[in-house]
Amino acid sequence: MPTYTAPTKDMQFILHDVLGVSASDIAGYDELDRDFTGAILEEAGKLAENVLAPLNPVGDQQGCILENGAVRTPDGFKAAYDQMRAGGWMGLDADPDYGGQGMPYLLQSTVGEIFVSANMAFNMYQGLTHGAMSAIHVHGSDSQKQMYLPKMIEGSWSGTMNLTEPQCGTDLGLIRTKAEPQDDGTYKVSGQKIWISAGEHDLTDNIIHLVLAKIPGGPDGVKGISLFIVPKFLVNDDGSLGARNALSCGGLEKKMGIHGNATCVMNYDGATGFLIGEMHKGMRAMFTMMNEARLGVGLQGYAQGAVAYQNALAFAQDRLQGRAVTGVEAPDKPADPIIVHPDVRRNLMHQKSFIEGARAFTFWAASLIDRARRNDDAEADALVSLLIPVLKGFLTDKGFETTVLAQQTLGGSGFTREWGLEQFVRDARITMIYEGTNGIQSLDLVGRKLGLNGGKTVIGFFDLVKTFIKDNEADADLKAQFLDPLKSASKDLQSAAMYFMQNIKTPNAALAGSYDFMHLFGHVCLGLMWARMAQASMAALAAGDTNPIFHETKITTGRYYMARHLPATALHLARITSGSETVMDLAAANF
Amino acid sequence: MPTYTAPTKDMQFILHDVLGVSASDIAGYDELDRDFTGAILEEAGKLAENVLAPLNPVGDQQGCILENGAVRTPDGFKAAYDQMRAGGWMGLDADPDYGGQGMPYLLQSTVGEIFVSANMAFNMYQGLTHGAMSAIHVHGSDSQKQMYLPKMIEGSWSGTMNLTEPQCGTDLGLIRTKAEPQDDGTYKVSGQKIWISAGEHDLTDNIIHLVLAKIPGGPDGVKGISLFIVPKFLVNDDGSLGARNALSCGGLEKKMGIHGNATCVMNYDGATGFLIGEMHKGMRAMFTMMNEARLGVGLQGYAQGAVAYQNALAFAQDRLQGRAVTGVEAPDKPADPIIVHPDVRRNLMHQKSFIEGARAFTFWAASLIDRARRNDDAEADALVSLLIPVLKGFLTDKGFETTVLAQQTLGGSGFTREWGLEQFVRDARITMIYEGTNGIQSLDLVGRKLGLNGGKTVIGFFDLVKTFIKDNEADADLKAQFLDPLKSASKDLQSAAMYFMQNIKTPNAALAGSYDFMHLFGHVCLGLMWARMAQASMAALAAGDTNPIFHETKITTGRYYMARHLPATALHLARITSGSETVMDLAAANF
Repeated sequence: MPTYTAPTKDMQFILHDVLGVSASDIAGYDELDRDFTGAILEEAGKLAENVLAPLNPVGDQQGCILENGAVRTPDGFKAAYDQMRAGGWMGLDADPDYGGQGMPYLLQSTVGEIFVSANMAFNMYQGLTHGAMSAIHVHGSDSQKQMYLPKMIEGSWSGTMNLTEPQCGTDLGLIRTKAEPQDDGTYKVSGQKIWISAGEHDLTDNIIHLVLAKIPGGPDGVKGISLFIVPKFLVNDDGSLGARNALSCGGLEKKMGIHGNATCVMNYDGATGFLIGEMHKGMRAMFTMMNEARLGVGLQGYAQGAVAYQNALAFAQDRLQGRAVTGVEAPDKPADPIIVHPDVRRNLMHQKSFIEGARAFTFWAASLIDRARRNDDAEADALVSLLIPVLKGFLTDKGFETTVLAQQTLGGSGFTREWGLEQFVRDARITMIYEGTNGIQSLDLVGRKLGLNGGKTVIGFFDLVKTFIKDNEADADLKAQFLDPLKSASKDLQSAAMYFMQNIKTPNAALAGSYDFMHLFGHVCLGLMWARMAQASMAALAAGDTNPIFHETKITTGRYYMARHLPATALHLARITSGSETVMDLAAANF
Repeated sequence: MPTYTAPTKDMQFILHDVLGVSASDIAGYDELDRDFTGAILEEAGKLAENVLAPLNPVGDQQGCILENGAVRTPDGFKAAYDQMRAGGWMGLDADPDYGGQGMPYLLQSTVGEIFVSANMAFNMYQGLTHGAMSAIHVHGSDSQKQMYLPKMIEGSWSGTMNLTEPQCGTDLGLIRTKAEPQDDGTYKVSGQKIWISAGEHDLTDNIIHLVLAKIPGGPDGVKGISLFIVPKFLVNDDGSLGARNALSCGGLEKKMGIHGNATCVMNYDGATGFLIGEMHKGMRAMFTMMNEARLGVGLQGYAQGAVAYQNALAFAQDRLQGRAVTGVEAPDKPADPIIVHPDVRRNLMHQKSFIEGARAFTFWAASLIDRARRNDDAEADALVSLLIPVLKGFLTDKGFETTVLAQQTLGGSGFTREWGLEQFVRDARITMIYEGTNGIQSLDLVGRKLGLNGGKTVIGFFDLVKTFIKDNEADADLKAQFLDPLKSASKDLQSAAMYFMQNIKTPNAALAGSYDFMHLFGHVCLGLMWARMAQASMAALAAGDTNPIFHETKITTGRYYMARHLPATALHLARITSGSETVMDLAAANF
């Protein structure tokens, strides 16, 4: 059975040595000193290691069961959920006015990685609630907030997001679910929603569904979509549960992974719904939560890679097979541990250097969300909006790839259920699909985000990279090993952006290159993160840090990223500048 | 449920327009005229489409069941197996002296792709038999051949290969299974073997296990391994079945995919075995079949990609979502089919251009095996031995990647069991692992095959590429679109080989670059194949072929490969020449 250990040292390094959180000017960050975050991460780690991780294979093998309209979650999920609730983990970054702890979103994300690595399917129950809570917090009326938030924050009610229907996923303009206005100001919601994560389960007393639907007579397409609160049980004015609403789970999807999470077909048969936010502005209400939701999925991607890597490493240290080409390393054993073999190490370094870069990127982005929200900083908001599709698309593609590499480290054992690696692969696969497929992320990046503020935001990103390089190039080691490769990669990114500009009259030119652009951008972001981490570690070493091995390891790992991951930027640029002809020339009928 | 259509036109194109098989000087190829191969492929296609493909999800969902030592295969497998046997498919390329049809191995591979695409787990039962048959045919005594081959060729007995034990996979020198010599010339075989595909099942009357074991007192390590025939039922002199042998299936592995194939723990408890080939030369006996076995796995890799692509394409032509950026294409429908979107097309072209290149590469390699064997051509034997690790490693890595891309085309539907794409992903995953992991393939390539005949074989390959370019560069279109990119890629490959030569005193330099070298080599092979296919299609168009669209499509698909796959050679070269330091610098304890 796989194991998990929370990477608290690596997390503390990013929070304090790289991001310098407690000295930051972001409101509330002064609370985040090293001891405080260390204590939080240690507690989260215990819960993850002892309770959540052991349930991960149980959830995979049992899955969820639908009987008489009720969904039974796997054995142990309810007890673990109650334990998590008792620990106050569900309201970590929620508004104190409604019972939350008011911590920064960055801390929520850091803890989130630990829970997701330990048990992604389980953590989705509270993850979806978090999204629904945010929507109600931003768009709900005072009475809606009073009615729903405290119970959701304490974890006794959960939440869902209902967007997809059989005929529409990406293209929400095709939604058919209807909301008929009633004389009392409520609506009767009718229609079928599919792929609703945590749509029905036995972990909470009530489930608060947020449902996109059309009010008859409204504008066509996405401009006529409104958002509704449709609770499983109606809530009385005193907060107690009232009648069962007219909605039900019509079936559970059989899927490749995340078996422990119930993916439901939800049928709304004239269910009572409450408009949230403005009529016909439902899409906007959904979009305000999008940065957080997509960051959360990007995090899932690398977090599955992280736990897979830990288990691959343990196997490589333990499994005896063959001898090192440079001479026997374990003469007392029948063979050397396979970590002596260069190709096994290459594979492990490929995993390790991606994961640590991805973590830094994600924490940085989470801090930008805090800066945007807590300091009301529009520039930070624009920057993180630019980065989010990159973070979601790149980290989930590479995160999945990392689970596959980790599985490969185990050879045949990686293919068997017993070792658990194959579950990480199957679970990670969904992250490339949901919350907007990675193809959609690349369209968002090229079609909307590149042009944000007339291009000023992306130019701001280039400047940020340039400034970092300029400010640090006096350090010869940092320059040769990190800054020069970063400069070259960043130039590739600028050339690609330039190519799109020059071919702006051929929209297919940018669209046929969008996916490669997303990956190119992702590599530059991780290159920047590694340059920042290397700088921090070099500084710590120069200052006589008590743990030099930690920092030397960090620098060596970064050098791998720069030497063997980052050169991919040239490949992505070559594909982009090859143009759209080879992509578009074939008539659809001739494929 | 997914569907499958045998790609007979594409296969015929490679056999006849590209390889020109019926005009070849390879013994027996004169029989392979267009009508003959067309008829064979059509028959194989019917069986695959109507019988095997519908059983593929059944096998995945039911799996195999072990009860009282007997394995029950999924519903319908036995009837399908009998139908395949009745059609004479199992002895297609087997020796006519023992009841085979004596067809070239190329035809066996072509038909093999069809069966593997339709149902990989099912086809493994006969695939393993084919390997065991080959070993007996090459190394068995006359009486062993008479005793086992006719029944195996007709399909009433099956075969297995028993190598792996719990403590050894790659490093077979650690084998513990013992074979004690008996007075009657037989051996008593004792030990445990794991991951034995088709080790026990209900499809045939007898199972002929080929088992690697050590005769006590022999040399240590791989030099003391011998190969034994250990039948499930002993065979009487008249060919009838005798006593049950002392061997049993001790368990079935639970695995990520290929559920329809029984992966067995096999226990040998003093089972009667018969030495095959020379004492202590068992490894050599295994190696003689290795080219075929590894070609077969490379074929599985791209064949899973091929069927996944077919289903992704059908989805993309059918699913309505969004509108083309260049203007509405299906005004009578609520949205356009998603194949209008550039990123969806990019994904499909990426799949298609790989699969068709991989097929040509595999058929070419199969023809080299025929040339080596049928014409006793040592140069062809050396060339294919060089290419086999590339073919196995590259085509299975990219084949798996292709199934993942195809799954992505379906968005959320790709993650559900219902559409079947996720099964192709899970099934394809094993091909990167078994028959020597892809890491091992890359070691074989760099450590053994590059130096074959003092380097003459790899130089012969470079010459072959150069000669093709030189002979055809008068054609300006072919030169610009295909030959120039091929030349550039081939130069990258030569630079990488040169780098290894220059650093020959640092074995880690080559070993840390071996995996990238394998991929670099694979791209050059597929680039060569696309240049050859484009040349054939351009010639056909110039000659006024009656199906110009087929050939124009071929050329467009090839142009995609050259523009968007092939530039990866530069990335692989950059990684290789970055050296082994970043791979090796970290002490194992500091990971």
